[in-house]
Amino acid sequence: MSANILAHTRADERQSHADATDVILTGDRPTGSLHLGHYAGSLRSRLALQGRCAQTLLIADLQALTDSSGRAAHVARQVPEVVLDYLAVGIDPSQTTIAVQSRLSALAELTVLYLNLVTVARLERNPTVKAEVELRGFERDIPAGFLCYPVSQAADITGFRATLVPVGDDQLPMIEQTNEIVRRVNRLASAAVLPECRALLSSTPRLPGVDGRKASKSLGNAIPLSATADEIRGLVRAMYTDPGHARASDPGRVEGNVVFAYLDAFDPDLTTVNELKERYRGGGLGDMALKRRLEGVLEALVAPIRARRAELARDRAYVMDVLRAGSERANTTTQAVLRDVRGAFALDT
Amino acid sequence: MSANILAHTRADERQSHADATDVILTGDRPTGSLHLGHYAGSLRSRLALQGRCAQTLLIADLQALTDSSGRAAHVARQVPEVVLDYLAVGIDPSQTTIAVQSRLSALAELTVLYLNLVTVARLERNPTVKAEVELRGFERDIPAGFLCYPVSQAADITGFRATLVPVGDDQLPMIEQTNEIVRRVNRLASAAVLPECRALLSSTPRLPGVDGRKASKSLGNAIPLSATADEIRGLVRAMYTDPGHARASDPGRVEGNVVFAYLDAFDPDLTTVNELKERYRGGGLGDMALKRRLEGVLEALVAPIRARRAELARDRAYVMDVLRAGSERANTTTQAVLRDVRGAFALDT
Repeated sequence: MSANILAHTRADERQSHADATDVILTGDRPTGSLHLGHYAGSLRSRLALQGRCAQTLLIADLQALTDSSGRAAHVARQVPEVVLDYLAVGIDPSQTTIAVQSRLSALAELTVLYLNLVTVARLERNPTVKAEVELRGFERDIPAGFLCYPVSQAADITGFRATLVPVGDDQLPMIEQTNEIVRRVNRLASAAVLPECRALLSSTPRLPGVDGRKASKSLGNAIPLSATADEIRGLVRAMYTDPGHARASDPGRVEGNVVFAYLDAFDPDLTTVNELKERYRGGGLGDMALKRRLEGVLEALVAPIRARRAELARDRAYVMDVLRAGSERANTTTQAVLRDVRGAFALDT
Repeated sequence: MSANILAHTRADERQSHADATDVILTGDRPTGSLHLGHYAGSLRSRLALQGRCAQTLLIADLQALTDSSGRAAHVARQVPEVVLDYLAVGIDPSQTTIAVQSRLSALAELTVLYLNLVTVARLERNPTVKAEVELRGFERDIPAGFLCYPVSQAADITGFRATLVPVGDDQLPMIEQTNEIVRRVNRLASAAVLPECRALLSSTPRLPGVDGRKASKSLGNAIPLSATADEIRGLVRAMYTDPGHARASDPGRVEGNVVFAYLDAFDPDLTTVNELKERYRGGGLGDMALKRRLEGVLEALVAPIRARRAELARDRAYVMDVLRAGSERANTTTQAVLRDVRGAFALDT
């Protein structure tokens, strides 16, 4: 089963909220290689939408610097790795624009203009910013770029006149902030220069790391899209199941069981998965049998991705060409939007 | 006496702090026509430095929007007016670059990068920002662009690799903030990518409005560079002197006397001005005689400026051409700096 077919079987629900006229902006911070959590949470949906809507994947390298300007070199190295991940899973650059944020000067110009339309108090009230500030322990030492990143995100979204933005529900305040800016620009222009956008909420629960904690490269608990068969085996074997399920004959818990979370996300045969859940709950199904099934499912998913990735990685020039061409196309789009927004601010265009 | 010769007689002190290798960045917010306060406080010094150092006058239209995005149309209209003022007083676009901030995309890009190098707490502590926030009554509703404007100013200064920035002493914190950013960029780059800058403090006291309050277009108490002879006469007649000096024979106060402030700033014959001060203090010199002298001095200064301004105003295409050519030159300069700063952030260049 190819990645693309699987994508269609699982992303139906999300996809149904998108019209053919929708313009989608999404992307990733290039802070590390993508893993199966990204595949289940976003890449699969992008594949399903590819060719149905205009879609841009923005590699947000500037945003990656807002909370850690010190790791600039690391971020720079990850940009082509993210492109490789995109191409390997089946993103087709002739259908989906892949662009690098820092190459689009119009986005910086829009950010600087929009900063005049938002108060500091409004930014500080943004729940996503508040939560992240707490998480990162910034307190009073928030980098100004971090406080302002909802404005930069509004620049990204409006720079492509995006109407649909795939987000987690923790990111809904970002959509709200963007639409406030859109309305203020349109009021300045006395015209509908920019469209409002709506959130495309994922119906997929967040895929946990193999230890049940949040998947993260730094914790080593995520399964990379480039994982070898051995790595997949090792990580599946290490998966957290139900500590109370000591013998196969014991009844086991499905909720919070990482193996079932992955089967739910990736097993093409959900009927069988549901039967296995029943047997596991009742007792009589061992962890090892389940893990062997999952290992097969993941290897079938990852093997073609890994192979394509390895092949593409040998052709650096092609990867760079995809980035260049996509960024050029995105540049044309965002410069046209900038002209309209400059008009709203009575700046020459 | 031409404006240029007068400039040399009065700007000696400031000028002596500038080396031939210095790069000067200065400019104005295009919020209204320039007046004699600008002439005494900055234009004269720019004329004296013209041809001695590389000098750019940046018309800061984006900065004018940071505290009033609602008056965008007004700001846009003022841009060519400021150019007319520059040209009329003797700024020579072949020696001094005149550029518009909003046409230099590199400045927005530098701003967005630098925002990552400064904390919100640091910006809130900036005494200039604090004072202005109080003055404008923003309290918690500070536009984010206003809080961030020291960063935008650092982008302007470093975008030209300026080494010398004419400022009032209330603006010294801006220079300090810029140099903090310069050091952080150089540390990121492990190289002296950007030069530190120093303040060029004015030795001229701020010229008051005719009523003794701060000169401001909205108060109608400033003498515009384009004032007619009648307007000059009316404004000089209305000047605040010494309310205790009712008769010519009474002793009068020189301090706080607006007529003497203007004579100090503009009378080419300071020896006579000092003699007049003695006579005024001792009693026996009437306000009317003094005002007639000042009227003559100001008319001699303004008449050629007014004539040149009127002539240039008929050739809009030339003014636009000056702006276009200057902005293009500035664009080349600032893009080169942006490439270096992008390198410091490991972004492709």
